[in-house]
Amino acid sequence: MGRILINGAVVVPVTEETYIKEGYLIIEGQRISEIGEGLYTGSTEGFDRVIDGKGKLAMPGLINTHGHAAMTLLRGYADDLPLQQWLEERCWPIEDKMTADDIYWGTQLAILEMLKGGTTTFTDMYFEMDGVASATQDAGIRGVLSRGLIGFPPKGEASKAQAIEFNQKWHKQADGRITVMFGPHAPYTCPPDYLKSVVEESKKYDLPIQIHLSETAFEVQQCKEQHGMSPIQLMEELGVFTRPTLAAHCVHLSDEDIAIMAKYDVRVAHNPDSNLKLGSGVAPAKKMLDAGLTVGLGTDGAASNNNLDMFEELRMAAMLHKGVHQDSIAISGYKALEMATKDGAKALFLEDKLGTLQAGALADVILLDIDQPHFHPRHNMIAHIAYSASSHDVTHVIVNGELVVENRNVLTMDEKKIYAEIERVCARLFA
Amino acid sequence: MGRILINGAVVVPVTEETYIKEGYLIIEGQRISEIGEGLYTGSTEGFDRVIDGKGKLAMPGLINTHGHAAMTLLRGYADDLPLQQWLEERCWPIEDKMTADDIYWGTQLAILEMLKGGTTTFTDMYFEMDGVASATQDAGIRGVLSRGLIGFPPKGEASKAQAIEFNQKWHKQADGRITVMFGPHAPYTCPPDYLKSVVEESKKYDLPIQIHLSETAFEVQQCKEQHGMSPIQLMEELGVFTRPTLAAHCVHLSDEDIAIMAKYDVRVAHNPDSNLKLGSGVAPAKKMLDAGLTVGLGTDGAASNNNLDMFEELRMAAMLHKGVHQDSIAISGYKALEMATKDGAKALFLEDKLGTLQAGALADVILLDIDQPHFHPRHNMIAHIAYSASSHDVTHVIVNGELVVENRNVLTMDEKKIYAEIERVCARLFA
Repeated sequence: MGRILINGAVVVPVTEETYIKEGYLIIEGQRISEIGEGLYTGSTEGFDRVIDGKGKLAMPGLINTHGHAAMTLLRGYADDLPLQQWLEERCWPIEDKMTADDIYWGTQLAILEMLKGGTTTFTDMYFEMDGVASATQDAGIRGVLSRGLIGFPPKGEASKAQAIEFNQKWHKQADGRITVMFGPHAPYTCPPDYLKSVVEESKKYDLPIQIHLSETAFEVQQCKEQHGMSPIQLMEELGVFTRPTLAAHCVHLSDEDIAIMAKYDVRVAHNPDSNLKLGSGVAPAKKMLDAGLTVGLGTDGAASNNNLDMFEELRMAAMLHKGVHQDSIAISGYKALEMATKDGAKALFLEDKLGTLQAGALADVILLDIDQPHFHPRHNMIAHIAYSASSHDVTHVIVNGELVVENRNVLTMDEKKIYAEIERVCARLFA
Repeated sequence: MGRILINGAVVVPVTEETYIKEGYLIIEGQRISEIGEGLYTGSTEGFDRVIDGKGKLAMPGLINTHGHAAMTLLRGYADDLPLQQWLEERCWPIEDKMTADDIYWGTQLAILEMLKGGTTTFTDMYFEMDGVASATQDAGIRGVLSRGLIGFPPKGEASKAQAIEFNQKWHKQADGRITVMFGPHAPYTCPPDYLKSVVEESKKYDLPIQIHLSETAFEVQQCKEQHGMSPIQLMEELGVFTRPTLAAHCVHLSDEDIAIMAKYDVRVAHNPDSNLKLGSGVAPAKKMLDAGLTVGLGTDGAASNNNLDMFEELRMAAMLHKGVHQDSIAISGYKALEMATKDGAKALFLEDKLGTLQAGALADVILLDIDQPHFHPRHNMIAHIAYSASSHDVTHVIVNGELVVENRNVLTMDEKKIYAEIERVCARLFA
């Protein structure tokens, strides 16, 4: 940490739909202290690091609002299968065998990929979360972490106790980079009374809730059969939405569902790629935005994507809804950029601090190499971010004022060791 | 040209749904002479070049079956607009001002991007095509080129004469890398009699036809109003399909349309990203495949995509139809890989020579850097190509037996000069 100057870059602050063609950015400690137009011409003494921004674009780090990091272990293991077969014959048997060590290394691989690709905040719901938190702490990424809760006996109550312990141990740790939420998995894996008890704990510890809601048509139908109402209606009924809630997926929503979500300001993690790949459908993102909902973007796990590339989610969000609704202005490139940055921060209840480049904001900043064909001509750099850019364009990543990726090299992680450990744990898991 | 050995790579030949975990590939002159499992242990004397394949994946170069290369000049200039406004207020006024010099440099930028991204064959329909052909010849890429034809007076007949002249001058030139087609733009820009005359020329010169068909709902409706039939039916009526035909887009098709296309073995260029971005819709790719049609993939021009990244099209083809049809097995990752390679070759009527790695095939080969997080673990490299890979993973590109990209550096092009020329021509075009 210290004082960092990025000088001479295109600066896209995502505070309004415009950008600085040549500017500078100063970071002091964990925060951005100044952004200016033109070249910084003051003395560079007193800076711990000066990064040449020529040929580069500076923008807020991307915010991944939904995932299961350690599922990188399953990447490429279960594709092009019917959903139930994917889940029951492939994912679950392997997950049953996963140890804390497996999850630690699977998470390392995920964080390595995310940092290299410009994701500075990720969201996680899984088990053996101490390893996930340790990996987050060590790698220098920002993480919003939840012990995933399946509410059935015999493990439901023990998991909740683990969640409370995890939350107390890790909330606001790692220089504030780690925050936590309660993570009841879904209405179909958490019975009503269990969900009510999680709501109580969430209130007691003043923490938000993240949960999967209305991901598939089958889930909604099943919920209606069992409870006489949609998953969204059930959550209202159980008081879940009285707590700050992040709802993942939300693919199959009625207009009434959307109205309920708007009433309680439910935040949404939209995972367009995962929803496509699993055949879940296309979430009504445009309708949710029109209703005033905050919609962030997420990759979901690597078993259903299969990468953790937030630039692809951003692009998909801008493209998909135009095509599906046959409306070329459905969601603009700039709106999709907001969804991947400042709206993502809001979805994670971190809106006061994150998601834009401005004085006072936490310094989560990425640089893109724009000396490449797909960034020419220079008509509109915001359009280029939304429609042309790739996670592979990212050269530098700063999280919380710390440089963690420099010239595509992750300073905080040992890439070769991670690949070797992945090979080791997979040899056992998939034996 | 000469003898090239690639040794120790993962080899994905796209001849069947399997791959070689460690193998070698030998190129002699324009063609692949041998593919083998394990390391090549013979003498490396007599090879002009030995490429270390360790940590790399070798696969056929990607085949872009539809585009307008010089529209890179419009990249980022016209986004998030209604379709008619995009076309009439943005694209056409600039295209009217484009000179041969503009188109030459716009095409250079496109070829630079495509080669870097692993596209070894591109398809083009535009005007001032001599510059496009020269750029293709010089850059070392393979091109299927058409002088685009708008059939209205006063220019319709002159354009056709230019097309005939262009075709005679360039067909099979550049060591056979350039082939040509007749390129009547679309039913709504080419009146019936004009299309009939193009069919006659196509017959006379024994060349295929490429044409835009049924891209938007509006176009289909208008065609029905004017001609009492769909664009596909109209093409049958006019005898277009008696000629080898490549139909671009095909978004709005009836079952009867698909049956007609199958009857004549019409080849299809599916452009999923462009169709999404312009709000045209989602082509019934799954239905077309089920009907036995050959469906290749294309980027379309950079004004409606906005990059020329065939890995994104491949991924989108594998993802989009699963989601839209809520069917997680709609189009598999391997099928999408075929669409981007061997089916693409067939769509361009080049199926005897291109699109797979096997002895006797033309040596259009790309290498990907798989020492990256998104290629781990190594469960299934075909799934990784389809769902995880990016054009930015490409390190080496061989076209027609010639190494044209080495360690991400395009040996045949001057990258900095291209950016400078793009800036120069855009300063005038967009003044």
